[in-house]
Amino acid sequence: MLADQLKRIVDETPGAVGVILMGFDGIAVMQHMNEAFGERDLESIAMEMSFRFMELRKAAEALDLGPISDITVKAKSGTILCRVLSDEYFVCALLDDAAHFGKGRWILRSAAASLTEDL
Amino acid sequence: MLADQLKRIVDETPGAVGVILMGFDGIAVMQHMNEAFGERDLESIAMEMSFRFMELRKAAEALDLGPISDITVKAKSGTILCRVLSDEYFVCALLDDAAHFGKGRWILRSAAASLTEDL
Repeated sequence: MLADQLKRIVDETPGAVGVILMGFDGIAVMQHMNEAFGERDLESIAMEMSFRFMELRKAAEALDLGPISDITVKAKSGTILCRVLSDEYFVCALLDDAAHFGKGRWILRSAAASLTEDL
Repeated sequence: MLADQLKRIVDETPGAVGVILMGFDGIAVMQHMNEAFGERDLESIAMEMSFRFMELRKAAEALDLGPISDITVKAKSGTILCRVLSDEYFVCALLDDAAHFGKGRWILRSAAASLTEDL
């Protein structure tokens, strides 16, 4: 189940505020938030990332970089990890603490195959 | 010297194709390339990243994420690491192999203070 998978990603990643599955059109499929971190608007963050993804994809092609698989953005109040699942979907996690960035990236990558199956 | 510092970043990062120092206006200050990787247009890649940085900075403010310090993009034929140096400048490294991503990020971060001094 998609909901269980998203919950597991949040549970297993230290400092994970939440995770969201979204289409590159900016429309959210499902999200799971860690209530301990209070209200965070992950949907708006992921939507912003979906726009940047679309632009970067076009640019990467022109620059001979090939398809993009991951984008990460580290900001003062959160680290955003995005992983492409297919031509249409990506998964985006928000971490409160960049210390577990590597683990979060690894968990998203491991979950990518089974998330794709459930789409 | 800026040129020595850029060379050192490339030399110390396994798989580093090159590194460039650029203004957020998309104008390059200086770059150092590892000749072993042949011709790669790092200036165009960094210019593209400078545009995305400007957009993400505005968005991050609106989304309560605060200032952005790092953006990384992993594509099939290269991994791009960008680190903000100041309000005006950032440094961007292109890695051929994502395996040394963590080391590259650490080296950029360590070099940030002394690069800023030389600006």
